[in-house]
This record gives sequence, structure tokens and C-alpha cells, in this order.
Amino acid sequence: MLNKIPNKTDIVGAADAIEPYINRTPVLTSSTFNNIFHSNLFFKCENFQKVGAFKSRGAVHAILNLSKEDVQRGVGTHSSGNHAQALARAAKLFDIPAYIVMPENSPKVKIDAVKNYGGIITFCKPNLQARETTLKTIIEKTGATEVHPYDNYDIIAGQATATKELLEDVFDLDLILCPVGGGGLLSGTALAAEYFSEKAKVIACEPSGADDAYRSFSAGKIIPSISPDTIADGLLTSLGERNFPIIQKYVNQIVTVNDEAIIKAMKLTYERMKIVIEPSSAVPLAAIMEEKVNVNGRKVGIIISGGNVELNTLPF
Amino acid sequence: MLNKIPNKTDIVGAADAIEPYINRTPVLTSSTFNNIFHSNLFFKCENFQKVGAFKSRGAVHAILNLSKEDVQRGVGTHSSGNHAQALARAAKLFDIPAYIVMPENSPKVKIDAVKNYGGIITFCKPNLQARETTLKTIIEKTGATEVHPYDNYDIIAGQATATKELLEDVFDLDLILCPVGGGGLLSGTALAAEYFSEKAKVIACEPSGADDAYRSFSAGKIIPSISPDTIADGLLTSLGERNFPIIQKYVNQIVTVNDEAIIKAMKLTYERMKIVIEPSSAVPLAAIMEEKVNVNGRKVGIIISGGNVELNTLPF
Repeated sequence: MLNKIPNKTDIVGAADAIEPYINRTPVLTSSTFNNIFHSNLFFKCENFQKVGAFKSRGAVHAILNLSKEDVQRGVGTHSSGNHAQALARAAKLFDIPAYIVMPENSPKVKIDAVKNYGGIITFCKPNLQARETTLKTIIEKTGATEVHPYDNYDIIAGQATATKELLEDVFDLDLILCPVGGGGLLSGTALAAEYFSEKAKVIACEPSGADDAYRSFSAGKIIPSISPDTIADGLLTSLGERNFPIIQKYVNQIVTVNDEAIIKAMKLTYERMKIVIEPSSAVPLAAIMEEKVNVNGRKVGIIISGGNVELNTLPF
Repeated sequence: MLNKIPNKTDIVGAADAIEPYINRTPVLTSSTFNNIFHSNLFFKCENFQKVGAFKSRGAVHAILNLSKEDVQRGVGTHSSGNHAQALARAAKLFDIPAYIVMPENSPKVKIDAVKNYGGIITFCKPNLQARETTLKTIIEKTGATEVHPYDNYDIIAGQATATKELLEDVFDLDLILCPVGGGGLLSGTALAAEYFSEKAKVIACEPSGADDAYRSFSAGKIIPSISPDTIADGLLTSLGERNFPIIQKYVNQIVTVNDEAIIKAMKLTYERMKIVIEPSSAVPLAAIMEEKVNVNGRKVGIIISGGNVELNTLPF
């Protein structure tokens, strides 16, 4: 288990270790988008990743880095989102238990997804305290290892591998745009850009309704979100303690966009790129459309974080 | 201009000629689908093609095969669908006029798309006779060449290149499943399978609400559709005269599925493969889900014909 900021060797090791268990996702381009934005955009499509999100990378890596004794007792987390599915799937690969604490009001589709991957679900009241205490009780009883969705160095190293792959496919990117919620993907992206690119700057893109990363980055200290509200349901969480120093050091800028712009960018992606993405994944394109980021004449990587969306309630 | 059934050399030539102007589309796989259907499915994603449909292949090829004199006078067609956009775009590439006759009740989004590609639109009453006579008048006046959406050997050779590429990527397919409307894609697919595969059989998949190909295939003569009704709006047309003999000779079987199955397959594709497809493209997967085709243990290519769909009115 990593107990410090992952170095280059850690991330290379993570990439090698998880390779048999994840998809090497394609990098797509769109000449329409390139014409509209006078830019070369490269979309790293983690919506095509196992369980439909980059979270599979970190989850597999976290389990692979457990000691022989620990791994047998399984893993646990509290999550109603992609991390829960990714951890349940990763645990199933290695035939170990995954204890997932979910709020009792979680959508049925998410509960079913975790069940399908063999996750052992415990329901709790829908608040953070209930989630944490319920998980703590389970961990004490089972000896399972908690795998935090983002505030965890093994997770960060795992998520970094998406950008490592992107930079292998398109080596001379000027910019990499990445959505930010808890900061697991962003801190991994920033480390990978630092280690594997000569010049790529990382810009984080955040919904203005959940702009704790933007405010924390400006203030120089973690300022948690209070009642965040955005359609980008994967980005409601506040920055993690292990993530923030990495973001402070290696991220160039954080920009924010409102939900209207996110929905517009999401729809444009469906229409023009013909891919299904979740709202969180539309935040970087929204930042480009709103001219929060200048991409003119540049080669720009964009991390499409996932594609898990309730199709019956698309916002357009 | 080809005046007989394209041979192997014609299709190789078409592939080489159109290569600079089209996308080599990716072949995607889904381990979820492979597990569900006990099969190896390979999806040739023409939804990622220029203008979002395989039609770009034939349209570019038809223009490239015009004589030097003819090409300057431009091309014309009557269509409200993907062929209109594809022909307008192809004409724009070579800086020649594209005269597009569209029914006056065509959706605004389709009219705008043709306009964006520089197509010169003439509106007419929404019936086949009005479309044909309006086009005839324009052709007589301008000297443009009519490019039929499917009953045209250059179009057939162009559409065949999708399957040629698929067979280059996955050489040992047992089956290729393809939707059928007018038969342009299907006849091209069948020729490519004949020329470029040792063993791949072609099965056409058709909506039961527009089953003229199924009925024609059984009867041994073209039986046009009367009032076809299906959500697969790209497959409403009846088989073309040039297409039918090719289909008779080289297609192994035609199966039909109802709209309910098509919608279910379409939704499953969005959910699991994270790609945007139009209803017509879901017909082959529907045939697999309904067990109209036995894919058990086989390597199966599936042509995803396009991704142009009205997102505001998705049927799920």
C-alpha cells in the first residue's frame, strides 16, 4: 500500500499491474469540434472503461497493492456512485468480499449494479456520518480494508494511468483538461502530466455549484463544499487531504462552469461525437465552450471520466 | 461510373479512393455483451463516420467516379435522411453543387444539417412522386447527376468498404449482421464478405414493420413496402433493383424483429456500450436478443450504421 505521493515508478508499476484487468480506452477526435474551437482536441474515453468509468483503474490497483493477509479479508467503502461498482467488480475479479455501504435512498439502478458485481451491500441513513459509522462497524467486524474513493495514494496512482495512456497516444499535448470532484482523478492526472509530458499543463474544470476545489485552490487550504448543487453528480464531493497538496503543486488552474453550460456541452457531445457520457464528463468541454479555457491552436487532452447516466432522465 | 455489380477490384479501388475523405471507424467490443450472448461480437461503428453514418462512404465514392465534365455540374438526390447530408458534405469537399430535394415537412434539424454542408435545398410535397418530379426538373435544368441513395453501383461499392475494413480488423468472422432498408449497405456488405472473407455468412436484419426485404427474399422478386411503419426511420425504403440480385445471391438469410425489441436493443447499447446509435443500428442486436440469429460460440461482426438520432425524443 502506498503511503506517500506516487512517484513516476509507482505509476508505471500501477499501469503494468492493472493492465490485464482494465480496458485500454480509445482516444477519440472530432473534426467538427476541432473546427468549432480552432484546436486539436483528444478525448480519452473512460466511459468505455470497465463499469463505465475511470474508477476501475484505482479500484483494481488498490486491491492489487494490499498485503496477502489483508486482501483475503476484503475491502469496504461507502459510495453510491461509480467507485462502489468499480470496487465490487475489482473484488470479484480476485474473489474477495467487497462491503459497500450505500444510502438507503440510492437509485435502484445503482444498487442493482453493485449487486450484479457481487458487492455485499449495507444500507444506511443518507448522510455522511451514518455512512462513515456504518462502514467503521463493518470494517471492525470483518477486518476488511477501507478503500476511500479518492483520498488514497493507491487510488491516485491507479487513476493516473488514464493520462499516462493518453500521453503515450498523443505525446505532445499542450493542455490536459480534467473534471474535479474529490480530486482522485485530478491529482492522478496532474502527476502523470508531470512525469510523462514535457509541457502539458493541467487545468481542472469544476461545476460552479460545487466549486470547493476552485475556492480551496485560491485560498491555499481545503474549504469543503456546503450543500453542493449541480447536475454533475460525480463531482459533489469535497477535495481529499491527500489530493489537495498534489493539486496545489501540479495543477495550473481551476475554472468553473454552470449547469446550463454543462448540459449544453453534454448534448453536443452526444450529437457530434456519438458517445454516451455522464454530466461530470461534460465539464471540460463546457469550459471550452464558455471560453474559460483558451484552446486556440493548441493540442488539448480531455478526460471523459465516465458514461453512467440515467437515460430516462437525460437533461435534454 | 460503375455500370455492373462491383467486383473485388472495384471495391478495393473504392476503399483506396475514399480513404482520404472518410474516417476509418473503430471496431468496438463489449465483454458484457459477449458474456450475455456467449459470443464474440465486433461492432463496426459507422456512427463515428463523417456525418454520423456509413452513407459518407458511398456519397464520396459516387462523386469520385463521375467524369470530369459531369462532376462540375454537380450532383442531386431526393432524401431527408443521412444520404442527403452525406452527399452535401461530399460535394462540398470537391467544391461542386449538391441539389437536395427535401419534403417540406422534413425536421428542421435535418434541413439545417444539409444547409450547413452547403447543400442547395428545394422543398417539395411530402410524397415520392413530388420528390421524383422535382428532382427530375432540377437535373434537367442543371445537368447535375442523380446519385440514388442505394440503387447505384458506385454507392454499393462505397458502402462495401465498411465491411472490407471490418474484415481487415477481424479476419475470421463467422457471421456479419447488417440492417436492411433499400439494400445499399446490405448489398455492399454481402459483396465484401464474398470477396474478403473465407467463411463469413451475411444475415440481414429488418424491422417487421418494414419487412419488404424479408418478403422479397422469400418470394424471389421485389415486393415493395406499402405504408411501412417502424421506429427504425432509416429502413423505411423498399429494396432497389440493383441491390436485390446481389442480396439474393450473397445474403444467407433475412430475419425480422419488432419495434419493441429494437428499442430494447437500442437502450442496451447506450447503457452498456456507451455509444449513441440510431434505431436502425439496433436491429441486428435486437435479432440476437430475440434469438432470431444463433450467435452462440461464434465471432460475429455487426454493422452499426449510424448515430443520427433526435435526442429530445429518444424512445426510452
